[in-house]
Amino acid sequence: MTTTDGWINEDHDGMRYGLAGRVLLEETSPFQRITLIDSDRYGKGLLLDGCWMTAERQERHYHESLVHPALCSAERLERVLVVGGGDGGTARECLRHGEVQHLDMVEIDGRVVELCREHLPSIGGSAWSDPRLQLTVGDGIAWVAAAADASYDVVLVDGSDPAGPAEGLFNRTFFEHCRRILRPGGVFATQSESPEAFRQVHLDTVRLLRQVFGHADPLYGWVPMYPSGWWSWTFAAVDGPRYRQPRPERAAAVAAGCEIWSPRWQHGGFEAVPAAIERDLED
Amino acid sequence: MTTTDGWINEDHDGMRYGLAGRVLLEETSPFQRITLIDSDRYGKGLLLDGCWMTAERQERHYHESLVHPALCSAERLERVLVVGGGDGGTARECLRHGEVQHLDMVEIDGRVVELCREHLPSIGGSAWSDPRLQLTVGDGIAWVAAAADASYDVVLVDGSDPAGPAEGLFNRTFFEHCRRILRPGGVFATQSESPEAFRQVHLDTVRLLRQVFGHADPLYGWVPMYPSGWWSWTFAAVDGPRYRQPRPERAAAVAAGCEIWSPRWQHGGFEAVPAAIERDLED
Repeated sequence: MTTTDGWINEDHDGMRYGLAGRVLLEETSPFQRITLIDSDRYGKGLLLDGCWMTAERQERHYHESLVHPALCSAERLERVLVVGGGDGGTARECLRHGEVQHLDMVEIDGRVVELCREHLPSIGGSAWSDPRLQLTVGDGIAWVAAAADASYDVVLVDGSDPAGPAEGLFNRTFFEHCRRILRPGGVFATQSESPEAFRQVHLDTVRLLRQVFGHADPLYGWVPMYPSGWWSWTFAAVDGPRYRQPRPERAAAVAAGCEIWSPRWQHGGFEAVPAAIERDLED
Repeated sequence: MTTTDGWINEDHDGMRYGLAGRVLLEETSPFQRITLIDSDRYGKGLLLDGCWMTAERQERHYHESLVHPALCSAERLERVLVVGGGDGGTARECLRHGEVQHLDMVEIDGRVVELCREHLPSIGGSAWSDPRLQLTVGDGIAWVAAAADASYDVVLVDGSDPAGPAEGLFNRTFFEHCRRILRPGGVFATQSESPEAFRQVHLDTVRLLRQVFGHADPLYGWVPMYPSGWWSWTFAAVDGPRYRQPRPERAAAVAAGCEIWSPRWQHGGFEAVPAAIERDLED
């Protein structure tokens, strides 16, 4: 991250995305450097280890894209696990689904949660006071390894890039535990990086999830503040690509409150596989 | 545009996209400020009036997205008109279609063509020496107004933002002439800005094209260097949304050479209408 002349920039491999604004606070937790900023265009925002995570008026791309394809398609929705997601946006979108009875959110960095609740309260919104939310500050990888077989209907991984505390969220052992703890008819989803800025990680993640689950497909969308603006989320299931078929009644219950996601948008995002990536994934 | 500490940035309304590199040359033509840069990540690139236009290794998103949905779907392909497109990338992709017999390219700024041919020769590629290309340095708006009725199979507008020389490329009179000069079964296409960074211009352009042509739809994709990285191209036709159906034989002839475009990707891009934009367009 660089700050110059009123701009806060994430510099990534020869390109940068910056917002005009000012740093509100910066501190180092046991896990990472946490920066809160106030931007002219998107309101308050968060960076971790100098990488853009979210902002008040640019968070829906990410959270709607990760949550609704999974929660609209799993067979049941009683128990949901979110690994990471300390800003609360993923939990907020999950809890808009009335069928969710219990949501475990396991975030490794308690300071991220505290600072987001204080400075970015709109992102978590009503999730923080929802009695269905069980927040645990702890290691999501250990949580998944210790969880009982077939104990969740949906598992969502809302972590940062595979460096630092999120590194263990992109490997076979972790994904195999995620598959193990899913109930029959369950759906797994993770952010899967940019096909442009992190092409190899993206390809490796999709391929590995296909091996582990049997069915996995990337959904392409946009997060303007992330490197290249072009982002992906990958959905996986054991019993077929059920994540491609949102249930109409669940979709109808959440669609009016969405800015980005709709069943039509989701269908497009699963089809919008760029030609060169499609060729690479077929190899 | 700002240049600081080895970065060249386009600053737009509180956000910026920057590339690490150096300015090769900068001059002011009668129409605009022209900047050529050399970037670490994407090779040489062009800015006009301080806005990113293209770069050697980031130009396919834009050019493939604008060209192939139109050229794969028009009834005939004998005569094509490109308004703008001085870097040559749009002409290059058009001329990959063997059915094209004649391509008029009307670019207002001859210096852009000269500098791109010299510094970014790979973008125009073989187009510059293709005998089917007729380059005219002149006003595309006047060209379209003077062209005969039903004289082109495809009209493509490859212009910059609606300020400066491209302002007249986004209004009813211009679009009505474009419709008039299309042959039956013809297809029109224009870049139609970012639904995020230029939301109102985007919405206005889609609505106006629907009024003028009867059928018009935005295709959503990515141009990482443009504001927000999230971009659109809008396709229009008189006799129905034929631009949504690429002809298989034409698609097969160009698909292997594409990095982004494929019939599947195109289908996804037309469906990936974000929920809030879809609601706005229905109003």
